[in-house]
Order: sequence, then C-alpha cells, then structure tokens
Amino acid sequence: MTVTIDQVDVIVIGSGFAGLSAAIEAAERGCSVIVLEKMMAFGGNSAISDGGIAAPGIDYQTAAGVKDSPELMYEDLLKAGEGLNYPELARIVAENAEDAFLWARDKLGVKYFKRVDIFGGHSVPRCYTPETISGLSLIKAQVDLLRKLEVPLFQGAYLKTLLQNEDKRVSAVRIIDDYRFNKHGIGTEKIIHARRAVVVASGGFGSDIAFRQAQDPRLDSSVQSTNKLFATAEVIKECMRIGANPVQLSRIQLGPWASPDEKGYGTGPLFADYVVYPYGIMIDPATGSRFVNELCDRRKLAEAVLVRKHPVIGIADSIAVDMAGWDLSRSLKKGVVKTFQNFKELAEGYGIDMKALNQAICKYNDDVREGFDREYQKQIMPEAGPILKAPFYAMRMWPKVHYTMGGLQIDKQARVINRDMHPIEGLYAAGEVTGGIHGASRLGSCAITECLVFGRIAGRSAATNQSI
Amino acid sequence: MTVTIDQVDVIVIGSGFAGLSAAIEAAERGCSVIVLEKMMAFGGNSAISDGGIAAPGIDYQTAAGVKDSPELMYEDLLKAGEGLNYPELARIVAENAEDAFLWARDKLGVKYFKRVDIFGGHSVPRCYTPETISGLSLIKAQVDLLRKLEVPLFQGAYLKTLLQNEDKRVSAVRIIDDYRFNKHGIGTEKIIHARRAVVVASGGFGSDIAFRQAQDPRLDSSVQSTNKLFATAEVIKECMRIGANPVQLSRIQLGPWASPDEKGYGTGPLFADYVVYPYGIMIDPATGSRFVNELCDRRKLAEAVLVRKHPVIGIADSIAVDMAGWDLSRSLKKGVVKTFQNFKELAEGYGIDMKALNQAICKYNDDVREGFDREYQKQIMPEAGPILKAPFYAMRMWPKVHYTMGGLQIDKQARVINRDMHPIEGLYAAGEVTGGIHGASRLGSCAITECLVFGRIAGRSAATNQSI
Repeated sequence: MTVTIDQVDVIVIGSGFAGLSAAIEAAERGCSVIVLEKMMAFGGNSAISDGGIAAPGIDYQTAAGVKDSPELMYEDLLKAGEGLNYPELARIVAENAEDAFLWARDKLGVKYFKRVDIFGGHSVPRCYTPETISGLSLIKAQVDLLRKLEVPLFQGAYLKTLLQNEDKRVSAVRIIDDYRFNKHGIGTEKIIHARRAVVVASGGFGSDIAFRQAQDPRLDSSVQSTNKLFATAEVIKECMRIGANPVQLSRIQLGPWASPDEKGYGTGPLFADYVVYPYGIMIDPATGSRFVNELCDRRKLAEAVLVRKHPVIGIADSIAVDMAGWDLSRSLKKGVVKTFQNFKELAEGYGIDMKALNQAICKYNDDVREGFDREYQKQIMPEAGPILKAPFYAMRMWPKVHYTMGGLQIDKQARVINRDMHPIEGLYAAGEVTGGIHGASRLGSCAITECLVFGRIAGRSAATNQSI
Repeated sequence: MTVTIDQVDVIVIGSGFAGLSAAIEAAERGCSVIVLEKMMAFGGNSAISDGGIAAPGIDYQTAAGVKDSPELMYEDLLKAGEGLNYPELARIVAENAEDAFLWARDKLGVKYFKRVDIFGGHSVPRCYTPETISGLSLIKAQVDLLRKLEVPLFQGAYLKTLLQNEDKRVSAVRIIDDYRFNKHGIGTEKIIHARRAVVVASGGFGSDIAFRQAQDPRLDSSVQSTNKLFATAEVIKECMRIGANPVQLSRIQLGPWASPDEKGYGTGPLFADYVVYPYGIMIDPATGSRFVNELCDRRKLAEAVLVRKHPVIGIADSIAVDMAGWDLSRSLKKGVVKTFQNFKELAEGYGIDMKALNQAICKYNDDVREGFDREYQKQIMPEAGPILKAPFYAMRMWPKVHYTMGGLQIDKQARVINRDMHPIEGLYAAGEVTGGIHGASRLGSCAITECLVFGRIAGRSAATNQSI
C-alpha cells in the first residue's frame, strides 16, 4: 500500500505491540497518526509470540488466592536483571502492568485463559496467556481499533532517515515506500513530515548477525534466532546517527531450549523445558558426560552449551515424557525429537562414546535414587525416577538468540536520550528497540507488559510534545 | 605548551601507554607525529597504575620453571572474559605479549623485578612489575624516546572534533589549545591536519558518571573510581558521532577491595586482598551477618556488596594481619583501616548489632576449625585459624569503578569500525578506549599488555595507512 500522506502529527515506526499502543494513545488524543511497517504484514515479532503478559493484581490472581503487588514484580524484574535495570523504568512497567493488561483484555477485547501461570524468575503466578496462545490476537485487536480511529497503517514502508529541523527537532522521516525486505533497489523514497513527533518502535536486533556479533562475538551465523529475519538494527543505527545513546547492547538473551534442526522458536523448547530440564539430562556428545545443572537459569544454561562449540544432546526416558504430559508429536514428526530403543542406539545416533554415556547415565541414576545430584547439585524431582524405561527420547540442543535487552536509552516519558544525556527533541521510543528496562536478563512474559506500558507512554508523550 | 604545528602525518590523542606506543611506532617509520594530551601531565591513568604487565615466554618464567604459552594466556583471557572477547583480538594480545614486554624492558630500558607473579585468573605466574611499582617508569621511558625522535608532545590540548574530508577520511582535528580540565571557557580552538591518520588512545570512561551510569545504573556518584577524574567519555562520544560502533559498554569492572574513606585506588586494597579475603570475613552492618564467599571473583564480590546499597565491613584479627605480612601503617594512619580491642567496640564503631555479629563470627570460627565453610563454601585457609586475637582490624568496603572493558570497536589493524561494520578511514584506536578484547571482565595486568600491543599496531597501521 503506497503511502499517500505527507504530513501528520505523529509518525509511528513499527507495528508490533509497542508501536500500535503508541498509535492508539496518540490518535485518542486527537492527533493525526500514521503507522509505518517495513514488512508486508503487521505485528513484527509480536505476532509470532505466544502473547503471554505478566501483571500483578489481576482478578484471576485474586481468585487463585495469589498475593502479588507492583512492588513484588519490580523486585523480580531487578533480580532477573541483576541490578542493571534502570530502576525508575522498571518501576513504571510494574506499576502500570495491571492497567496494561486490563486495557488489552477489557478495552481491546482480547480473550485470556483464566489460569494464572508462573514462569522462571517470577515470585508468584502472574502470567496470562491469550486463548489463541498467540500474540496475533492482540495485534488484530489493536489494528481494528486503529482502523476505527481512522489511523492509516502502511506496509512496505521502510525508515531510511530521521530528519531534523533547524531547532534539531526530529520533524520528518525519509522512507522507502513500496519496500520489499531483502530485495534491493525496490521502492521509492518519500518524505513524511511529523508536526509533533516520531515514535520508534521497531523491535530488537536478534536477527542482525553483524550488529549482534559486534556486541557478543559468539553469536555468529551458526546461532539462529527465534525472531523473524527482519529483526534487524537499521532503526537503532539511524537513531544513533543523530545522537541517540545505545545502552547495554551486549546484553542479549539466548534461549537454551532450542533445536538447531528447526527454524525459529520451534517445537523443541516444549521437550527441553518440561521434560529434559526437570527429569532428564544434557550430554556433551564429545565427552559423553553431563556438564551443567540442567535446572540453572537460562543464561547460564545457554552459556554452558555455547562454550562447547557444538550442539549437546538432551535425553529423557518414557516415564519422564509421560509424566510431563505434553504432546510431543509435532517434534517427533519433524525429527526434532527422536526416539531410541536403548542407549546403544542413542549413542550411535549422535556419535557419543557408548561407555562414557552409560557411565554418565548410571551415575545420574544413582544420584536420583539418593535424591542428591553430587555432580551439579540439580534439584532432583523424585517422581520421574531414574532414566530407565525405553523408548528414550533425545534432541540436539543449541541456543538461539531470543531477545535483545539493550537498545536506545529512554527516560520516563519515553523520550530518546542522546550521548550527552539530553532528550532528542521530537523522538520517542518503546519496546524492544529500547534498552535498560530488563538489565542483564529479561523475565519471561514481561516483554509484552513493557511494550504496552511504554508504547502507551510514548504515544501520550508524542501527542503532547511540548518541544514543537 | 601551545600547539604550534598545524599539519603532520599522524596525530595521536592521549599520552598513556597506548598513545605513546603508537607515536613511537609511527615516528620510527618516518612519519611526522604529534601527541595531544588534554591534561597538564603525561601518562593519564597509565601513570598511576602499578605498571604490572602480563606476558608468556619471558626468561624470568623459564628461570622460575614456569611453563607458559601464548595459547594458555589466550585461553585465560577468554575464560575471564566469559567468552565475550573478540577472539582474534585477544589472540593478538597473547601472541604479541612477549614482544611487547621485551620492547618495554630491553628497548625502552624499564627495570622490572625478576620475580614472576600470578594474579587471580591467570593459570600460571606471568606478571612482571617495574622496580618502581609504578607505570610512570614506562611513561617516562616512552616520552624520552619520543623526544629523541623529535616528536612534539603537547599538554593542555583537548580533542573537540574529528574532521573528515570529502572522501570521509578523518583528516584533521579541531582542538582546544591551552585547555584546562574542568575550567570552562579557557583555551583557543585550533585545527591540525593529519596527512595519514588520527590515532585515538584516550583511555576509558571510569570517571564519567553520566556516561557510565547510562550503561550500569548502579554506578552513580556514590561509587567512586580508582581512575583519575579526567577518565571521561568525550573522545568515545566524538568517535560515535562520526559513526564509530561502541561495543560492550555495559561491561564495567569494579574493584571490590576499595575503601570509600579514601580517594582513588588507595591503601585499603592491600588489607582487603591479602588479609580480609583469605583470612577474614565481610559483614553487612545492617544484618551483622556474612553475605558472600569472600574469595569469589571480583565481579561477584563487587555485585554482592553493591546490592546491599551501603558499605560493608571487612574484619580480620591480629594473627591474620601478622600472617599476611603486609605493612598496614598507611591505612591505619589514614583511618581507612581501624583497630578495635574487642568485638563490642567494633560493633559499636560501625553500628552493627552486637549479638548478630558475635553469632556470625562464632559460626565462621566453628567452620574454620572444621575446615569447611558451611554457609558460603569459601576455601578455608587453616593457617590463620579462627578470628580470635585482639586487636581486631576492620575497614569499610564499597566498590570503585576500575576499568571499562567496552569501547570503540576495532579490527586486527586497530582500525575503528563503524555501525555498518566498515572501517572509518583514517581513524585508529588502541587501549582502554577500545572494547571487545577483554569481554566481560579484564584479567589483572593485561591492560598494559594490550596498550603496548595494540598501541604499536595502531601506530604502524597509521604510518602505512593506504586510505589517503
């Protein structure tokens, strides 16, 4: 859809949760708004997420007898972030999480399961999943509302340059219209003027191999990403060009639960998270031995695997698979998870030294019987017992880039901050493109909370921008 | 000294180890060179370091029967750096370390003790200290050689702007001449042209509170630095302005051994490193309890203290002080380390709950007697025994910013890399201003090795720059 507008109050770059939230808020304040999306579909990586959102104080929590508070969520965020979080921004996320969830559910009409889940790092259950188990429900609801608000949403519109007026305010964007991802030389340049502000909500850079590898040299092309290929850094770089200060860029979250034998997030994490970690073991095929506490946090797990320089093998038995109760048929069909009738077959299948593997499993089984993992102090789940019953299930495991905690420095009003710690007039940012909220590590299901909370703040700030 | 030259082949920014090494190499290749130092003394933070340098394969090592290799040093660098190091750059440091040391000792004539020391994180002893125990010996030797080479060195010359010609090559600098640190409005602007290149060797940003706090929000003004006040980010920021890619900026090394009751590196680290950690305990005055394994690595130690949000108390008894054998008179004279006749006095001195403190010490003493620290698994050094004999020694401890691992991205030729991963023509960098060599954590005494190795590479690259 060709962009036909050359002047509005607020231009939003990106159509994920953060961008659409910003657009709604700005439009509801009477601004003329457009949303520019470089791809030919709306939603970016938000659309492929499971849509899970964390919030304290929701009625489902009360019903489940869970005691929670913004303060507790704030503390959990800082603990996961190892204290590197911008405390004032993390507090805003925690304090506005309830309102953000109610906005999504009650105003936008997204249907959530009534269950309250707990994910690693949260002190109490406070995570809600849409009934579709997909972020697309919320994206669709946001797009619908924006259409009602008569906000034009353009696809294939790629931000090329941020333009500043003589007062150094970001006052326009140069875009490539009719852009097609990864096809060079297509599209035409256009300039669109922003009377009030530009909101950048272009997502993270998990798929930008050169840019991420500069921050973490281990993350070369052998490391896939759970993100789509379009999760690249061009907007961050363009903001840096006009002075934006990038913070904590080397803090990149890896998913240790991934399989290198399928693309994207895939089906393997189900087997890893719910079967291998609690009830099984991980083996380095080069040594035939365990090498880590399989229940340690995801950062340590991913790093323990990366340092081996090759995929490792997650192994569990039938009892563990039955106990976990998840349907693994998709993984089995894709060949991501394989079954073996005995350890010999399994060792041959992955080129593991049979004797070493046997020894490792026997040792682990002894420890399970005694209830104490002598080697890596993993908490033994006695209910699954030793690894004994055929068929045995196994999966190759190699981390994938999942989320980029670092990004543009912003303040409490979502203003983008420059290298001299002053706001860049007319430029706001929200969502994964920003840095500092999650610090060293993002807590599960808090990304969407952040996108809604700071997306809305950015939209409100842009609508009332005083710098014009 | 007013800058009287307006055109040379190579301009070097900064007069620490890296800058002076670059200037020597460029001058020895027949280039006209000048060194610009913003302060009124040469050497920057290099001059206040102890001058210790790590290198494998030195004759002193052979004499001491130490087996070492560049490969082993490389592995140690990567281990300390948690794999975040740029492997090709770390390898260059390790492979050229011997040559760098011999250059300092045999060519420049710096006298080193013949002893080979080992510091935390090195697999074998490979660290050499100048007989003066000061980096100033090497700085003086470098300045002397540069004077022989007729290289003008200017003090009070502050880099304001990097100027690029129509080919985008860095071809000149705008400086403030007769600059005085922290005095605004003094000095005059001048432009100096660089026929070949500009080498940036301006050091880290450990004392730039705003810039470092943006990367690590915990490092506000309550956290001092062991660096001098002039260790600020203006040159990094100026390089970023023309497109340089900053990497791993949030990786900032803290010294956990510091006292908040004295400035800079100070005298306290001696007591902390050689008495408290091995033979004593650290107590949180708010709880009266221990909170960490006092012998864990310096990053974990510093973070364990920071999270308490107030200084903690390091405590040891007379036996420990005698055993360690260091002269603490300077610390005692300054009041950095204090003595107490009994635990009651000590508890009162720091407002610690007496009962809790007694309990903590008794528990620790029991563990020392049994040879196993049940609470924090610290390795017990049995020779010092329990904490029993008065007088007791104590010091307030609060981390200080020590080193900034992150900085400008460079390649193997010390070329500064831009956000699109291309070299910026005519711009080179070396030393603490660069990032990526040390990854998550710098190994002790490897900073000087890096400064000499990459300083010399930058000088050679600048002298032979083909981009002009």
